[in-house]
Amino acid sequence: MMKLDRREFAALMLAATAVAGFPRPADAANDDPLPSWSDGPAKQSIVSFVHATTDAASPDFVPPADRIATFDQDGTLWVEQPIYTQIVFVFDRVPDAVKERPELANEEAFKVVLSGDRAAIANLSTEQLLSVVGATLTGMDVDTYRDEVAAWIKGARDPRWKRPFTDLVYQPQIELLKYLRANGYRTYIVTGGGQDFVRAYAEAVYGIPPEQVVGTMFGLGFERGPNGKPVLKREPKLVLDDDHAGKPEGIHLVIGRRPHLAFGNSTGDREMLEYTKGASSATLAMIVLHDDAAREYAYGPAQGLPDSRVGTFPQELYDKAMKDGWIVVSMKKDWKRIFAFE
Amino acid sequence: MMKLDRREFAALMLAATAVAGFPRPADAANDDPLPSWSDGPAKQSIVSFVHATTDAASPDFVPPADRIATFDQDGTLWVEQPIYTQIVFVFDRVPDAVKERPELANEEAFKVVLSGDRAAIANLSTEQLLSVVGATLTGMDVDTYRDEVAAWIKGARDPRWKRPFTDLVYQPQIELLKYLRANGYRTYIVTGGGQDFVRAYAEAVYGIPPEQVVGTMFGLGFERGPNGKPVLKREPKLVLDDDHAGKPEGIHLVIGRRPHLAFGNSTGDREMLEYTKGASSATLAMIVLHDDAAREYAYGPAQGLPDSRVGTFPQELYDKAMKDGWIVVSMKKDWKRIFAFE
Repeated sequence: MMKLDRREFAALMLAATAVAGFPRPADAANDDPLPSWSDGPAKQSIVSFVHATTDAASPDFVPPADRIATFDQDGTLWVEQPIYTQIVFVFDRVPDAVKERPELANEEAFKVVLSGDRAAIANLSTEQLLSVVGATLTGMDVDTYRDEVAAWIKGARDPRWKRPFTDLVYQPQIELLKYLRANGYRTYIVTGGGQDFVRAYAEAVYGIPPEQVVGTMFGLGFERGPNGKPVLKREPKLVLDDDHAGKPEGIHLVIGRRPHLAFGNSTGDREMLEYTKGASSATLAMIVLHDDAAREYAYGPAQGLPDSRVGTFPQELYDKAMKDGWIVVSMKKDWKRIFAFE
Repeated sequence: MMKLDRREFAALMLAATAVAGFPRPADAANDDPLPSWSDGPAKQSIVSFVHATTDAASPDFVPPADRIATFDQDGTLWVEQPIYTQIVFVFDRVPDAVKERPELANEEAFKVVLSGDRAAIANLSTEQLLSVVGATLTGMDVDTYRDEVAAWIKGARDPRWKRPFTDLVYQPQIELLKYLRANGYRTYIVTGGGQDFVRAYAEAVYGIPPEQVVGTMFGLGFERGPNGKPVLKREPKLVLDDDHAGKPEGIHLVIGRRPHLAFGNSTGDREMLEYTKGASSATLAMIVLHDDAAREYAYGPAQGLPDSRVGTFPQELYDKAMKDGWIVVSMKKDWKRIFAFE
């Protein structure tokens, strides 16, 4: 019989139990709350932060009531390329909106959208896009709108993966949300997207309830419906543009506490990340760099990545992240697995 | 020995044990979660509602996540006469505001407030009052403002009771808030008062955390402070007027769920109460009638009570309450004790 040292013996046992289907010593790895994260500095930062802020003996301890973590959605929790999912919803809704209000068909922006001409659509100005958004996403009551979004998102498919958009959530982030919640953090979405659009699926997809979705808010009109039952009707009036400086503003209006952790991916998240880093105690600011064209998309233009109108991450923001101790998460290097369906 | 029937015997035992300081059978009453509420239909409505919505076997069962209760503050949780506490704060702050911005002293409304002439102050138009509010409650960052409010409310005294305003909270409502929370309800304040004003003391006074205070919202500007640390500066721009139809609007923006219980006391709460009653399942709408001049104040003008500019409760609203099954809570009859200090 050959002589084995302890390490060789352990390796042999491991192989044997794996083959035999016995419990493996490596089962300890199943306790890893972040299995889709590569072992590296990003993952280590998260784990250290959570330990430091939840250990009552730590100088960085954060009382449970103050454990607030805020996540951007588009490009941070799910795919935002080639165009925001909510814009796809808007375009899909345009024919119905025109049926309900035929006068819309005379507006230039609606003509372009109805033409289906992708190049022309891409050339619509932000103002024109907003007029289409305003006309298609308002006028109904909030319950009807929620049901419309929920029904649409069940049936719609992303053209590249031929899957529901809700399948295109990043598995490492789902694990992170769960890990934070298991450690007493309340996880919020803070999105430039419509608050009620995201609420329609956030609970099912992210485990995040409506009161923890901060988003772009439209005015609501109080009306008594046909049965006398009061409803809130969506109005084409912006109450809060929850992007850039609107993100910390929305955080204060809805939560009233400064987050200890914030996660974004583009210029629109900069102020939220700065605001979070400005807390007087332990903080963690993280930002996703989309550098994996093979598994997802590659865009910046930071670090020589291609430029993008959607989810812009300029070099200047990258440099600021480096300077201020934000953790840049490389999709390519830090995420072992991107989607649950992989 | 005289012959006692069972009821007489029980009464005698009760008297004897009370005198002797023994545990009394009436100790069972100490388990009453609402001891300051008189036994009567209002209290019974609350208890029945809570039982029906928290018993999993009940057809009116409400899942914990949907157990939302919203309370107006002024006149519902604490005294609002002769004038809202926040207005007292504004007037107390005016001299400092004028010191910081001397040009304010030239404005008519500021002159009146600085004169201390009560009759003239009472005659200020709503527009003039709002200009004073705008100038005194904005311009500082949200943390500074919170600290100012917290410091002020510690020292300020109500002229009638010579006590801190925070002593003038209604003990029956404190018990109700606790009772609801003990039954899985999340209790929110939904106030026409300033959101950040109320947040500064709501947790200490009502046990209600900042994220559960919905109030009138001012715009917030993102600024980098002298140390480079970002702050949110209060701007004289109304984001949400959280009164009347603004209450259900604020509820939807911050909570995103329709409440099952709402409690108010005046016209400003009407839409919130209607909205709550419009839920498809079990609901409870309650409204305080201030009919106790001896222990608190008496005003309506419903039910022949004196009219009031503050906290108006007209007969038309009273009739609607009766018709739609809202519970009118008579301060005089339904509340055994009004203040904890009594």
